Amino acid sequence: MARALAAAEEAAARGEVPVGAVVLGPDGDVLAVQGNEVECASDASAHAELLAMRTAASRLGSPRLADCTVVVTLEPCPMCAAAMVHFRVGRVIFGAYDPKGGGVDHGPRVFERPGCLHRPEVIGGVRERESAALLRGFFKGLRQGRPG
Amino acid sequence: MARALAAAEEAAARGEVPVGAVVLGPDGDVLAVQGNEVECASDASAHAELLAMRTAASRLGSPRLADCTVVVTLEPCPMCAAAMVHFRVGRVIFGAYDPKGGGVDHGPRVFERPGCLHRPEVIGGVRERESAALLRGFFKGLRQGRPG
Repeated sequence: MARALAAAEEAAARGEVPVGAVVLGPDGDVLAVQGNEVECASDASAHAELLAMRTAASRLGSPRLADCTVVVTLEPCPMCAAAMVHFRVGRVIFGAYDPKGGGVDHGPRVFERPGCLHRPEVIGGVRERESAALLRGFFKGLRQGRPG
Repeated sequence: MARALAAAEEAAARGEVPVGAVVLGPDGDVLAVQGNEVECASDASAHAELLAMRTAASRLGSPRLADCTVVVTLEPCPMCAAAMVHFRVGRVIFGAYDPKGGGVDHGPRVFERPGCLHRPEVIGGVRERESAALLRGFFKGLRQGRPG
């Protein structure tokens, strides 16, 4: 989570919403570290965890991330949670809960739906306060008219 | 939809699940045409419509596809439907309904959820039989052990 938080801070410095993600392989090796790139990549789907899953799968040469762990500083949105099902991610560890935009413990609760084809293990709230503080600081800065 | 169906046929020829998508700009100009690339790109998120939205947004230089139309041969899954919210897509036209994997008229019904930040106009069932026949033929071929 320390590396995911560092990636979130780097995203904020680029003017992106500060979310960071890491994908760990079955042996705990780091396969990918990514921050949010929505604005710089002109890609509304360029959320940190989706980018990290794509990078990790590319490195493994397989569209599946079985037995891999995704660590992300914010509760995944429904898009990213549904992508985790497609990638067959083994475990998801996230930081801050997201009552408005989250899709794991909030909203459609993607993994808990009947017919969900794959349910990763989920651990939420890890270093939650640091993740949330980064986001709060970023949005406070935006409201005050200064970048990240 | 004819171009989306052609992209789906090309995907099948590559051994991919035959789904194709087109993004049209506000003036009806074609911004992107993509088929499913999950296997060839080793990317479980490489669904036709998500790839097409990313390509179109990159061409426009903006993470938003306001007033754009996504035409896709199959009902979008929850990942792609949620991505359409992030991209602020204006209209979605799809072919076959997908009772098991769909996220628009089935499953979490992403656009109808309370708190959904953006609701595209949706038209489903356009050239539905052709889209469904492509998918049926592909999966029948898989069961019989021949590619696409």
